[in-house]
Amino acid sequence: MHPHSFYILPDRTRLLDEYRNKKVSELPAPSLLIDRSKFTNNSVRMLEGARALGVDFRVHIKTHKAAEGVRIQLTGDGSYSSDKIVVSTLPEAWVILPLIDDGTVKDVLLGIPIAKSILPEVASFKKLAPSFKLMADSESQIDALEEYASQYGTNWEVFVKVDMGTHRAGLEESSSRLSSLIKRIVSSESVSLHGFYCHAGHSYDARSGADARSLLVEEIKNANLVAKYALTLDSSLDLHLSVGATPTAHVSQQVKSIQEIEEALGEKIHGTLELHAGNYSCCDLQQVATGLVALEDVSIFVLAEVISEYPGRGKKAPGEQLINAGGIAFSKDKGPIPGYGKIVEPKEHTGWEVARVSQEHGVLQPVSDNVEFIPYGTKVVVVPQHACMAASNHAWYYVIENGIVVDIWVPAKLW
Amino acid sequence: MHPHSFYILPDRTRLLDEYRNKKVSELPAPSLLIDRSKFTNNSVRMLEGARALGVDFRVHIKTHKAAEGVRIQLTGDGSYSSDKIVVSTLPEAWVILPLIDDGTVKDVLLGIPIAKSILPEVASFKKLAPSFKLMADSESQIDALEEYASQYGTNWEVFVKVDMGTHRAGLEESSSRLSSLIKRIVSSESVSLHGFYCHAGHSYDARSGADARSLLVEEIKNANLVAKYALTLDSSLDLHLSVGATPTAHVSQQVKSIQEIEEALGEKIHGTLELHAGNYSCCDLQQVATGLVALEDVSIFVLAEVISEYPGRGKKAPGEQLINAGGIAFSKDKGPIPGYGKIVEPKEHTGWEVARVSQEHGVLQPVSDNVEFIPYGTKVVVVPQHACMAASNHAWYYVIENGIVVDIWVPAKLW
Repeated sequence: MHPHSFYILPDRTRLLDEYRNKKVSELPAPSLLIDRSKFTNNSVRMLEGARALGVDFRVHIKTHKAAEGVRIQLTGDGSYSSDKIVVSTLPEAWVILPLIDDGTVKDVLLGIPIAKSILPEVASFKKLAPSFKLMADSESQIDALEEYASQYGTNWEVFVKVDMGTHRAGLEESSSRLSSLIKRIVSSESVSLHGFYCHAGHSYDARSGADARSLLVEEIKNANLVAKYALTLDSSLDLHLSVGATPTAHVSQQVKSIQEIEEALGEKIHGTLELHAGNYSCCDLQQVATGLVALEDVSIFVLAEVISEYPGRGKKAPGEQLINAGGIAFSKDKGPIPGYGKIVEPKEHTGWEVARVSQEHGVLQPVSDNVEFIPYGTKVVVVPQHACMAASNHAWYYVIENGIVVDIWVPAKLW
Repeated sequence: MHPHSFYILPDRTRLLDEYRNKKVSELPAPSLLIDRSKFTNNSVRMLEGARALGVDFRVHIKTHKAAEGVRIQLTGDGSYSSDKIVVSTLPEAWVILPLIDDGTVKDVLLGIPIAKSILPEVASFKKLAPSFKLMADSESQIDALEEYASQYGTNWEVFVKVDMGTHRAGLEESSSRLSSLIKRIVSSESVSLHGFYCHAGHSYDARSGADARSLLVEEIKNANLVAKYALTLDSSLDLHLSVGATPTAHVSQQVKSIQEIEEALGEKIHGTLELHAGNYSCCDLQQVATGLVALEDVSIFVLAEVISEYPGRGKKAPGEQLINAGGIAFSKDKGPIPGYGKIVEPKEHTGWEVARVSQEHGVLQPVSDNVEFIPYGTKVVVVPQHACMAASNHAWYYVIENGIVVDIWVPAKLW
């Protein structure tokens, strides 16, 4: 048994029987809402950018981890589509099996450098996906893959992760460890090189389109330099350069052609370029802080209920209030915009933000002048600081259109 | 249907069939471990402190939210026990129903100021508990309780929350809102006053036993002043003063008698004193930072697998490493001790800490000199920064003794 198979996904049909057509104000709180129109618009815009640029788009599904959301991200409004995804955990891979079955997903990348202990489960999943890739950034991983291959005859295909300076996973473009790893893979009998993968995580610090655009060019430049090196080892390699993060992918919508990128690079691209991103479908305060997303485009919300008020408390009139959603419902992640969330509905109460969170409750503070207390029992709709982290503690999402529940999405959980 | 009833608890029996007697190194990662001996020792020590002082102890169950853990917290080694708990959510209340059925739990307090929308569910649960209390800190809540009572005939019993300066929930001792709320309750026909509840959340900032002891006395002093006021309204009130937070409850073990407290207060206590705390059973780096808990006493751990290494990266030799556990497995909570977790096993790798986390991976940095890289594939046992938040994203816990799985605990989730 895979460990996550002991986690029983909530029954979407029963949830729909209970909540379909309910108004947001009738839903339980805390809970997580996704506005399907906004989610779809965000997805279409990103696909349109990739289409205009003439590149493939690989959908990262880690933000919401729900099959229905992945389908929208991949197919948009039908005018342009993709069949490639990145997952960050195996449960995310298993949860999209229905999309493999119906042909929507054809290519799955497990996007975290491969852990040794999960190879048997990875091999089981690999058999079900038309194309399946792993991420590598260390020769120890290649040792493990080759050892598994020698025992079970599995052949592996890998992206090599290039570190863009975020210093999470990956190796730096100019490092001897990177060239040594590439040599090792190119000469391996059971592991083949699919291409190079960059993630400019520090693009979340971008504060303008110009910032993000230069990071996008930087990503492509790095991947391209590494590709050039790999081609010196084997000129027959068919390499894929996968670049992106939500901010850099957003600015890709302003780039008109591969040619424009090659002009910025000063050389041609040595492989097939693809973009990847995930958060863009939801967005959050961290994305709003990059200046590339409007608060109105955010499609994900935490619903909370106002449970108390404290006149005169805090620095600003009229005081502070308490909501029944805290660090579990919002996560404790922060960002350049202060606080843990911004109230966007009801419209008359948008002068408040979630300033502090404890485990199961949060404190609202006024951010505008002349705001009034929100009446006890009011449900407030809050844009969270970080969509991926906020979604993680919700076992299903209420999918709404015009404030009415139209669907329930049940995400993958655990590992 | 209550919303959380769509969440299906993982099957403990099936999990035990799969994992019982497994060694820690054989468990999947990321996962959450609880050392039952340490958990029990922590629980016995706290009960012993309450016994020595001659006060009741009310167990907060929000840290782990699992019935088996609550049983140990309440009964310890059998020499002293309690039957009172605090829950922070309704699912926590429902999950301990078996302990109500067998008489282990007799008194349940829902410890967050009562939300209007959950009153029907609260009323359903109330019928099953021998004694059930709510938390109040606003007259709007009393309005809602009375309105519900007038419709359904339910009578309510409340603790009033006193704000000790943490400014989360509660009203300050000297405030007119507090005296007005007490008057309102004392004159209510359907809501009765059980007592006053203080939580010195800022005691987490304590850095010594002396700090925490003065906060404990401060808590009791505040509750006592409010009790004195309430008794002027109705001298027949039988009031309960519930005080504590893990740091202040820890120092209560050094206080020898109620008399010693009354001497520190300079007056007698106007009610029945009870202590409450929850985190103490697990503890974490935040508790270690108070100086009242040794790292060796922490009973909760995140298990993670080392998946890569980056020689020369970061400020300290030999470099950095990657683990497959990040912000979801650890939470993004921080504390006075830097980082997100400290490796405690294997013993030869305790020179590393979790310095940064992204959603699904974390970066290890060396904290000692002359440490060596942890081999790829090694499982490391990590003390998290904040037990309550780390536990929240794990659907079950592996309960170990001497490094072997002896039980599985399945916690309540959601709201």
